[in-house]
Amino acid sequence: MGRRVVSSGGEASATASRRASIVGVGETRYAKWGGITEASEYQLAVQSVLAALDDAGLSVDDVDGLASFADDRNEATFLAADLGIPELRYATMSWLPGGGGACAAVSNAATAVETGQAEVVVVYRSLCQGQFRRFGRGPGNAAPKPRPETRPAPRPGVRRARSLLEAHVAFTMPFGMFGPPIAYAMVTKRHMHRFGTTTEQLGAVAVTTRAHAARNPRAIMGERTMTMDDYLASRMVSDPFRLFDCCLESDGACAVVVTTPERAADTRRGGVTILASAQGTLRGFGHGQYSNVSMPDDDYASAGARQVAARLWGRAGVGPGDVDVAEIYDHFTGLVLLSLEDFGFCGRGEGGPFAASGAMSWPDGSIPTNTHGGSLSEAYVHGLNHVVEGVRQLRGDSTCQVEGAQTCLVTSAAGVPTSALVLART
Amino acid sequence: MGRRVVSSGGEASATASRRASIVGVGETRYAKWGGITEASEYQLAVQSVLAALDDAGLSVDDVDGLASFADDRNEATFLAADLGIPELRYATMSWLPGGGGACAAVSNAATAVETGQAEVVVVYRSLCQGQFRRFGRGPGNAAPKPRPETRPAPRPGVRRARSLLEAHVAFTMPFGMFGPPIAYAMVTKRHMHRFGTTTEQLGAVAVTTRAHAARNPRAIMGERTMTMDDYLASRMVSDPFRLFDCCLESDGACAVVVTTPERAADTRRGGVTILASAQGTLRGFGHGQYSNVSMPDDDYASAGARQVAARLWGRAGVGPGDVDVAEIYDHFTGLVLLSLEDFGFCGRGEGGPFAASGAMSWPDGSIPTNTHGGSLSEAYVHGLNHVVEGVRQLRGDSTCQVEGAQTCLVTSAAGVPTSALVLART
Repeated sequence: MGRRVVSSGGEASATASRRASIVGVGETRYAKWGGITEASEYQLAVQSVLAALDDAGLSVDDVDGLASFADDRNEATFLAADLGIPELRYATMSWLPGGGGACAAVSNAATAVETGQAEVVVVYRSLCQGQFRRFGRGPGNAAPKPRPETRPAPRPGVRRARSLLEAHVAFTMPFGMFGPPIAYAMVTKRHMHRFGTTTEQLGAVAVTTRAHAARNPRAIMGERTMTMDDYLASRMVSDPFRLFDCCLESDGACAVVVTTPERAADTRRGGVTILASAQGTLRGFGHGQYSNVSMPDDDYASAGARQVAARLWGRAGVGPGDVDVAEIYDHFTGLVLLSLEDFGFCGRGEGGPFAASGAMSWPDGSIPTNTHGGSLSEAYVHGLNHVVEGVRQLRGDSTCQVEGAQTCLVTSAAGVPTSALVLART
Repeated sequence: MGRRVVSSGGEASATASRRASIVGVGETRYAKWGGITEASEYQLAVQSVLAALDDAGLSVDDVDGLASFADDRNEATFLAADLGIPELRYATMSWLPGGGGACAAVSNAATAVETGQAEVVVVYRSLCQGQFRRFGRGPGNAAPKPRPETRPAPRPGVRRARSLLEAHVAFTMPFGMFGPPIAYAMVTKRHMHRFGTTTEQLGAVAVTTRAHAARNPRAIMGERTMTMDDYLASRMVSDPFRLFDCCLESDGACAVVVTTPERAADTRRGGVTILASAQGTLRGFGHGQYSNVSMPDDDYASAGARQVAARLWGRAGVGPGDVDVAEIYDHFTGLVLLSLEDFGFCGRGEGGPFAASGAMSWPDGSIPTNTHGGSLSEAYVHGLNHVVEGVRQLRGDSTCQVEGAQTCLVTSAAGVPTSALVLART
């Protein structure tokens, strides 16, 4: 199936984010869950910031801002002190959930730079599941994750509000709905039911992404090739998700440096322009599809990103037909299909055939996708590595380089409050 | 002592924050520690958002952004779902520490509005010390507050990085340096030693602020008058701080609504312009003076806000001489003096005589300060109530209204990474 551009724009905006640039990217080594023991997650955050600055030819003395996103254990004010940043003028965490927030953090850094709050903002993510807890595990016999209003326990006599989100959990957990693989399996199953999406179409995402990883020396799964037969033989985790439908559980950190175009012109590698950014969530989406299985079907079995996509294309002044390469958040294969639909690369319900047609493949697909290997095969760093790869593509130094790439879409997680960027060669 | 303007500006900036407005303010009732049991802290956050929207004549359907600041237990994505916000397009937490972050949160909301990321952003703070823990208590026999890299415990074999900030604690805690009252007592004592600042000058801050609270029906201490004799008779907490040098410990929440000037023109009360904002911290200041008693004396015995002040005045295009009223973060009386110095209302070391001269008093002082009663006498909501009061002054409905007030300075906490705003009558 060829590339079909369904949406070419959205609501117009007079205030496009055209002025900030990404001038450096860096990462620590990536390893499977528990594979990094020589440094703490916090140390890796520091290392990734230094690596990104070095890539840009900048030093800590140039930095005046730090940005990250939800649930970051590595607080910016501590990092600033330990790095020796002369004056921290901006330190912000997007509240969009882990997977949904990487592009939002870059967006926030861009708004800080555009409004003059700061000049050089480093966006970072360090994530060592091996040093803390693995995502996607249900609470089991352990205490459930505390909710905002219940940590620590209120004093006796204080009436405790239960959020609507907690109420939803009460209707889903008794039926075994623990953690992302199960919740997103439901969403994907619904898409299969409605549109005839097949297991092999999910497998096409996994196999294509693994093939890209094979060229990337940073990819954790770089030396583990995967055929469709390998995919089909992998064990079932949560129907329809097999092991290879699920992202890695890994240790590592990465960072990107955002600054003004003026400063960008003086950096070692030059800048990649942040053409537009958008953040958002559908009504009723709450903290994600976990929370609300009663949503309308077209919202439920979607990436929940249609409104973000419309704003993004409107601000960027380009549409999916103008994009040369895409880095799509891939916690689960099925959600990549839904994101491709929401962002207009194919029609509603056509994600499966689109992926199976080879559209995502490098170098010959119509929209090479996750050219670093993504969360499925490079590393799971909550998608900030997707931003890193987008920058590499536009600088011309990806290991699956799309010839002459001028424009790249980067998305954060489908199925939760999310965000996205359009990056452009300067 | 008359008003002496020492600094009239700072570094210039081409990107002043002139475009966002505050169109609504609201709060729940305020009560002393443990005084609110009918609602949880989370519920109060929701109530304060609704109150601020009602003040503006807006509804939840108008809101597309939420902003708060560090260590907020009440996560924006949960609030958005529970409030029923149609689409949350911006949800950000400033990482500046509690006291330092209120103005930063408003600043972030303004940058979101200015860059078109969102159109109506509500900034909120709910703080019920009675439902959680009281600030300013040392760890005692309980486990110390976990650090980023140690929560929860890393797996065995993982080398744990200790941040420089932790190292500092090792040099201060053994000498009894537990919590803010002790740390800030040291800072204030140093100021007294160097400049001859007196107990009565500290008392002038407490007594003046209490007098303002007496006119404010929201103020927790509104009916408790205080004379200088009362102040001098109050028990010593941490020399030189008596009980009445320390802010309240309280329960309550407040919120402000930030939007575009175009939207502001259509709101019930009109808008107050955010003329400029700035955030920052001095080199080596780290997470605050707690962490670094080895700073140069002029940094240590200061509010640590000189660079923020310079940037703020530069962006605003006005200086301290142009300000009609000031809302200065007052966790401790001594730090108000240091802030007045750093922001240029008096010379270095002159904060004490300046306060004792009556400069801060309404209505006759040269710069009426904390006209709501501040954290010392209205409520301790991490200083977002100071922003609320600044807005009231410029709308003409403060209970200590400064006649014809056109321009207001609002600051966040001295002694930690901090932030500040200049507000102006539209």
